[in-house]
Amino acid sequence: MSDKKKKKPQKLKARLPRGFVDRSAADIRATEEMVAKIKAVYENYGFDPVETPLFEYTDALGKFLPDQDRPNEGVFSLTDDDDQWMSLRYDLTAPLARHVAENFNDIQLPYRTYRAGYVFRNEKPGPGRFRQFMQFDADVVGAPGVQTDAEMCMMMADTMEALGIPRGDYVIRVNNRKVLDGVLEAIGLGGEENAGQRLTVLRAMDKFDKFGLDGVFKLLTTGREDESGDFTKGAGLVEEDAAAVCDVLEAGSDGVPVVGLKDRLSDRFANSGRFTEGLSELEMIEKIVQASGYLSDRIKIDPSVVRGLEYYTGPVYEAELTFDVTNEKGEKVVFGSVGGGGRYDGLVSRFMGQPVPATGFSIGVSRLMTALKNLGKLGTSEVIEPVLVTVMDGDAEAMGRYQKMTQELRAAGIRAEMYQGNWKKFGNQLKYADRRGCPIAIIQGGDERAEGVVQIKDLIEGKRLSGEIEDNAEWREARVAQETVPEGDLVEKVRRMLEAQAEDRRRAG
Amino acid sequence: MSDKKKKKPQKLKARLPRGFVDRSAADIRATEEMVAKIKAVYENYGFDPVETPLFEYTDALGKFLPDQDRPNEGVFSLTDDDDQWMSLRYDLTAPLARHVAENFNDIQLPYRTYRAGYVFRNEKPGPGRFRQFMQFDADVVGAPGVQTDAEMCMMMADTMEALGIPRGDYVIRVNNRKVLDGVLEAIGLGGEENAGQRLTVLRAMDKFDKFGLDGVFKLLTTGREDESGDFTKGAGLVEEDAAAVCDVLEAGSDGVPVVGLKDRLSDRFANSGRFTEGLSELEMIEKIVQASGYLSDRIKIDPSVVRGLEYYTGPVYEAELTFDVTNEKGEKVVFGSVGGGGRYDGLVSRFMGQPVPATGFSIGVSRLMTALKNLGKLGTSEVIEPVLVTVMDGDAEAMGRYQKMTQELRAAGIRAEMYQGNWKKFGNQLKYADRRGCPIAIIQGGDERAEGVVQIKDLIEGKRLSGEIEDNAEWREARVAQETVPEGDLVEKVRRMLEAQAEDRRRAG
Repeated sequence: MSDKKKKKPQKLKARLPRGFVDRSAADIRATEEMVAKIKAVYENYGFDPVETPLFEYTDALGKFLPDQDRPNEGVFSLTDDDDQWMSLRYDLTAPLARHVAENFNDIQLPYRTYRAGYVFRNEKPGPGRFRQFMQFDADVVGAPGVQTDAEMCMMMADTMEALGIPRGDYVIRVNNRKVLDGVLEAIGLGGEENAGQRLTVLRAMDKFDKFGLDGVFKLLTTGREDESGDFTKGAGLVEEDAAAVCDVLEAGSDGVPVVGLKDRLSDRFANSGRFTEGLSELEMIEKIVQASGYLSDRIKIDPSVVRGLEYYTGPVYEAELTFDVTNEKGEKVVFGSVGGGGRYDGLVSRFMGQPVPATGFSIGVSRLMTALKNLGKLGTSEVIEPVLVTVMDGDAEAMGRYQKMTQELRAAGIRAEMYQGNWKKFGNQLKYADRRGCPIAIIQGGDERAEGVVQIKDLIEGKRLSGEIEDNAEWREARVAQETVPEGDLVEKVRRMLEAQAEDRRRAG
Repeated sequence: MSDKKKKKPQKLKARLPRGFVDRSAADIRATEEMVAKIKAVYENYGFDPVETPLFEYTDALGKFLPDQDRPNEGVFSLTDDDDQWMSLRYDLTAPLARHVAENFNDIQLPYRTYRAGYVFRNEKPGPGRFRQFMQFDADVVGAPGVQTDAEMCMMMADTMEALGIPRGDYVIRVNNRKVLDGVLEAIGLGGEENAGQRLTVLRAMDKFDKFGLDGVFKLLTTGREDESGDFTKGAGLVEEDAAAVCDVLEAGSDGVPVVGLKDRLSDRFANSGRFTEGLSELEMIEKIVQASGYLSDRIKIDPSVVRGLEYYTGPVYEAELTFDVTNEKGEKVVFGSVGGGGRYDGLVSRFMGQPVPATGFSIGVSRLMTALKNLGKLGTSEVIEPVLVTVMDGDAEAMGRYQKMTQELRAAGIRAEMYQGNWKKFGNQLKYADRRGCPIAIIQGGDERAEGVVQIKDLIEGKRLSGEIEDNAEWREARVAQETVPEGDLVEKVRRMLEAQAEDRRRAG
């Protein structure tokens, strides 16, 4: 390129690609608070952190995205300079499988690890639907028995409670892919050639929460028209088979123990070994969580749980928040799933000559955060904005003096800053302090400088509506909104004023 | 694609793309410890977190990578489905500039923010050189005066000390691009047409630390041959101009105050307004940091500081660790730079119709971590591995019992796990506990079960060399390596054994 052609266009447009967002301080702090609480639970369960990078070779990731209609889409991919395809991870499970297979000789199984990180989906963004979002996963690799799945469910329950979600406002629902496979087998949908129809049936079952038994029956047979007139094609099952599937959904919705499911369903599906095996595994999970006191107010066996990803091979489980929220249409709806997972015995062994059983789950961090905000369980920890040292003179000596005051406050552990904008308009400095929520402003003009004093201005006191702490009139009267103190007393006086403000907040409740 | 063609190859190779790495638990914990300490300093200085996503439109990022020979390379880019080019961010500054410009009306200036995050360089990876790495930045946007640059330097110094780097083992070196511009102008290298040669001269100056005055002189004139015989072409300056440049480098290396630099250099560069302006700004910075007590053991004015990025417009500063380390060739070398930054008044205004002055710096998190490991300042906080509840029987009832014990330990805040591998080989369970570093194993076989007791095995006691705490013979004798206790006493006894182990560590120093 010649120098002439390098000339930039006059004005570049500042905008983000669709589906990506900037994150505010409040959002970041709330996420950190949440992630720390989740981490404490995982650590308590004996899990250690392990992380993988954001890129993987495309073939190593596999094609396990929910939307199976577009197997080549859904991920962000590019070619490396040696022409190999790389993709940004779309979840944290596929990279973990690669990590375990690559380091198999150095890893002590069972391998209990957790990780929080961004994942990417190259999909049409929508409201609340982003192309970069955070997941927080925990997995045990090298764990063949369903006792591990039982433990994962209990860990999810403990996580919900550690985040402040009251018992009864969440439930961990557990099913087994083998049960679903058995049902599909029994109605003649086994085998590779029925993969497409199986998927349609599973999708229909997954709508049980939303459309109820009647809606699912329509989706399983001739199709369903919604209120807006949109028609979803049916799976084309005969009524008897559709009724059998609905029976399975209904059976679980009462929260009956597995023995009850067996009584109710075994006759119809007795010809499927998978079905029987699946139910036995669920029974084992049930007994283990019962012994630990987690049944049935926290963990519930429920054959209507489907979970999307194709790689699940055994138990699947999800954390559902059961309280109502108002959706964007103004309707009251159950908040729903905030995470889930299951057993993926085939994912690591894709790379290996041997089976490597594994199970794990993923929490959708932003979605869970929305839920916690609804419950008022987040962002409750207090952030004190900095004390503002205002600037009345711009020469090096004055700047040095203001900066020295600021450093003295900081050295005493008091969050502080010197005004760094154009100092000449003093009004701008106070406006800045106000919009920023600074609790205190420090002012020293020429006169104060000559006397060796500084003004300390209480900006919270000035702002407060007098009614707020009416019953504390005495306390309020004793509070001073502005003080002039010797330079040497600055730190001590600021500390006292901040303490008084904290006391104000306490009294105001 | 037909179903037949979908068949996967028999065995997929598990490997990461070059230049990307997985991160271990120790690495993650050390990073978290470090990031938390840095964050505390930034918060104390009145900075708030703000984050941008990993993708930006390519044009919004601009082309500011150090390697100007390959302006279109160095970043990972792909086209969105509307054919617009997107890139993964290569630093955290360009995205911040976009963020500020995009939200200009909602942002209160000066805007003091920080962010830690991954950045990506599509470059040839090498030893210690990765294509994904973490930076930790702090910036003030809307700050026209060099008092902000002075503050940034002090914040870098405080950060080094918060991380445990002793005063004297680090120095913050400050220069001003205007000084360098003035020098280049004075030797006739001003103007767009000399951009290429200017870059060569700046690169030569940047080698002052490495090659000394003599080496730089060669690079400025006819070129330099290294020990291996490799020849680097010179900038082609006449000797008088090269000597002038070397004078500037030498002038700063003594740590003389700016007034000394003025005395020494003003005559030669008096014809450059930029030079004089640059020195005056440095003088102001010097006075401010002096007033706050940060000169000159922590912050040093040094005209040899270049810093790479093209977008700097005023003061530039870097944090250098001055202690020696042994490099991969076995040579003792100064550890060097762990971060730096400068003023970039043009970066936000690329998007705007108005000037938006800004300054900020970036810390290379992995590089700083390497330094801290060298100093023994990281990973000192103790991680206690989980207590292992071993499994002697596989039926649901037994599993429920073991899991219940595990949950009781966890509920008491004791990190614990039930063995989740194949339980049938008991030796594997103890081997797992050993390799994992579990402090205690819980054992309950059929006989213990019948008696209602459990065995608690101290795995640390068993492992320890007897000589280690020789002078504590009495204490050691009182310690029991294995106890059989009633089931109801499990939690209390485990807690006591963990406390005894902590006491052991304390006594062993």
